[in-house]
Amino acid sequence: MAYEYIELHPDGPPLYRQLTDSLKTAMETGRLRRGERMPSIRKFSEDLGVSRTTVEAAYQQLCVEGYLKSEPKRGYFVLSGEQPGNAAPRRAPAVSAPLAGRFRYNLGTDCADAENDDLRIWRRHVRDVLNRREIIVSYGDHQGEPALREALAAYAGRARGIAAGAEEIVVGAGSQPLLYLLCGLAGRRRAAIGEHGFAQAEQVFRDCGIEVVPLPYDENGIDPEALRRSGADLAYVSPSASVEGGSAMPTSRRFELLRWAQETGGILIEDDYNGELRYRAHPIPAMQGMAGGDRVAYLGSFSKLLLPSVRIGYMVPPPSLLPLYRERARNYNQTASKIEQLALAAYISSGQMERRLRRLRKLYAAKSQLMKKSLASVFPGRRFTLEETALYFRTRVAPEEAEALCRRAADEGVRVRTRESRDGVFAALSFSGIPAEDIPGAIEALGRAWNEKG
Amino acid sequence: MAYEYIELHPDGPPLYRQLTDSLKTAMETGRLRRGERMPSIRKFSEDLGVSRTTVEAAYQQLCVEGYLKSEPKRGYFVLSGEQPGNAAPRRAPAVSAPLAGRFRYNLGTDCADAENDDLRIWRRHVRDVLNRREIIVSYGDHQGEPALREALAAYAGRARGIAAGAEEIVVGAGSQPLLYLLCGLAGRRRAAIGEHGFAQAEQVFRDCGIEVVPLPYDENGIDPEALRRSGADLAYVSPSASVEGGSAMPTSRRFELLRWAQETGGILIEDDYNGELRYRAHPIPAMQGMAGGDRVAYLGSFSKLLLPSVRIGYMVPPPSLLPLYRERARNYNQTASKIEQLALAAYISSGQMERRLRRLRKLYAAKSQLMKKSLASVFPGRRFTLEETALYFRTRVAPEEAEALCRRAADEGVRVRTRESRDGVFAALSFSGIPAEDIPGAIEALGRAWNEKG
Repeated sequence: MAYEYIELHPDGPPLYRQLTDSLKTAMETGRLRRGERMPSIRKFSEDLGVSRTTVEAAYQQLCVEGYLKSEPKRGYFVLSGEQPGNAAPRRAPAVSAPLAGRFRYNLGTDCADAENDDLRIWRRHVRDVLNRREIIVSYGDHQGEPALREALAAYAGRARGIAAGAEEIVVGAGSQPLLYLLCGLAGRRRAAIGEHGFAQAEQVFRDCGIEVVPLPYDENGIDPEALRRSGADLAYVSPSASVEGGSAMPTSRRFELLRWAQETGGILIEDDYNGELRYRAHPIPAMQGMAGGDRVAYLGSFSKLLLPSVRIGYMVPPPSLLPLYRERARNYNQTASKIEQLALAAYISSGQMERRLRRLRKLYAAKSQLMKKSLASVFPGRRFTLEETALYFRTRVAPEEAEALCRRAADEGVRVRTRESRDGVFAALSFSGIPAEDIPGAIEALGRAWNEKG
Repeated sequence: MAYEYIELHPDGPPLYRQLTDSLKTAMETGRLRRGERMPSIRKFSEDLGVSRTTVEAAYQQLCVEGYLKSEPKRGYFVLSGEQPGNAAPRRAPAVSAPLAGRFRYNLGTDCADAENDDLRIWRRHVRDVLNRREIIVSYGDHQGEPALREALAAYAGRARGIAAGAEEIVVGAGSQPLLYLLCGLAGRRRAAIGEHGFAQAEQVFRDCGIEVVPLPYDENGIDPEALRRSGADLAYVSPSASVEGGSAMPTSRRFELLRWAQETGGILIEDDYNGELRYRAHPIPAMQGMAGGDRVAYLGSFSKLLLPSVRIGYMVPPPSLLPLYRERARNYNQTASKIEQLALAAYISSGQMERRLRRLRKLYAAKSQLMKKSLASVFPGRRFTLEETALYFRTRVAPEEAEALCRRAADEGVRVRTRESRDGVFAALSFSGIPAEDIPGAIEALGRAWNEKG
């Protein structure tokens, strides 16, 4: 093998970097082709007259950047080049490259509409925190950074009617670490959850040895009579988004559930997933604030409000569990990134979060209307349900067709995913990541994909 | 109340910011004094002729920056000004301000020696990731960013002898989220742990309904006979730092434990806390690689290696549990910050992590020698044990004296903390955060604090 394309200058930049660059160029110009196996580290280093470390570092850099792939015991293979048509990615594809290449429209539920302005502000806050040496060379607070808890207490009070001071708030990297903590504190045996289910919460319950009981919905949400009969001592509800059609649970039903908790000593876990994001009507305050929070554990998060990459959630445990929490607090290491916690604190305290909320409510109201109209005109016969705070329309599909529907959509340049839940398989068409002006085109493309054989 | 110190210009910067600045100046110049109650938001806004939002935003900004404190139902109070002498902080003090003010020397175990160079490189990597829009507007990989897992697979293989490809590695925000996941996968009933105990792991076991059995140590570490008798089906060990005196567990004992696991079907959880950081001898490879990893779940982390604020750990589950993990992987949201994961991937792949390791080994060898000498000369009668990879000397103290010892040290400007473990109370004198040149002075100050009454 001739390596005439490799240029190394002893007095240039670090050798591994020169090697990395030469190899990139070789791949980009087609001298090295996709799937080609690279020389072994030992052979390459001997041939080039450089150390093995240099070759290894270059290979690793190229792996990180997606040019090479390392296969245990087999060696390094060239990854870059054209995407072959139907190669199934080994896992959920990274959103960047495949999206750009394969999809014209992204209706996936895993993207957010981040206007440049908010991104810019968020970056600025992260950079500000990053520049404060004392923050990044020390551990954080077990319960969450005090500045963030102060900001959350004020925000959650205003935006969601939550009655809690900074001392009553526990921060974590999303809901799951907080749920584990809560399950440990509460020491319960049986958790009720709506029949659609919620895999992430159920997994935590099972990991903690708690039995999961799915409960039927009626038109107002989870059925309190079924809850009583179930013998559950824990109930997981999302009152902001728990009723068929994405409506919020009415206040009367909330009080019925609170009554169940008070009479049986049960605990309600209120997952306020995007509760502040309701745009069709004024947001309904959280249950936590309705009953003094006595029997409610409140869970809030920000993935959809801010940026999906920011995994910060918070919990307000029921007051009765706080003394036990304080005893154990030091046994739980904080999971959320300290830098992102402090950036979020600044973002909230400066009023930016609430400004963003107001903008998002308007934006999502407009986008959901637009998608509704497009769907009605392209799919006159099909039923679509708006899941308001989850930011998508869902439509039932035959389980055996799910894969083909996604594939046919992809062939038309539309990224769509289906989800299994206890009561069937659904396609979720999200309007959260796609720009408003692309929505009509996306639904038309979906019509070509789905209506031709339908 | 006269507010003549407040200057607001209608055509200047946003009003809340002008108000914030005026209030800061008022506190810094002593017009507003520590403990003073601020006017209510309503009153202040009326008096100043600005909106309540303006006042509220200013108050919140000041809370975040530590100038004000909000007390639920009581109002806002001035926090800045001189620290009163013995005010007990309500929780673990933030490392920044109180340290600067009260302590000349920091022997706390919660700081890291971060040279400017590494900080600079780390910041650069974070900034690079932050600038990639597609990364921060999308969710991450459930199992951990592929680039990080690739980098970890290569690093852990080289640095710790771990046999695992990127597909076998699960990333999380430190060990606890990974332990919850493992407990759920393994479905065990009884976990053995060394008699010193490890509160964070025990808490996870208990939260998952797993009984915890403390086991005695002999001179080689956890006693395999006691382990057999305990009936445990899970054993939590730190073979790199598990023997009295901070020595690593000898290879013979590691094989005995592996034999226990193979014969009984037990699982060994290998917490390789700072395993790569041994500086007195060459690091001993992890147990995971010794037996093909068959019965071992490996846990690695980076808090002490890189920066305490970076909470990223990784796990290699036993191969037998991988199929079940793959089934459930989507039920677990990733907990580690996506930005920090990708920054860490770049940091490792560029060879920086291993360069840092080599530097740290030298540095900690020198600092531990220096502290050992200082301790021997200042406290000739007292026994100090070096916990090598934990980076501190420990010394037994009488439980009833623990608080007074910390206080007397603080009076001499030295920050020291004590820890309770199952077999007593110990003071931990860490050399990780303090600059080498300060060590002799710190130990002399500690001598003044502790020897006077001793």
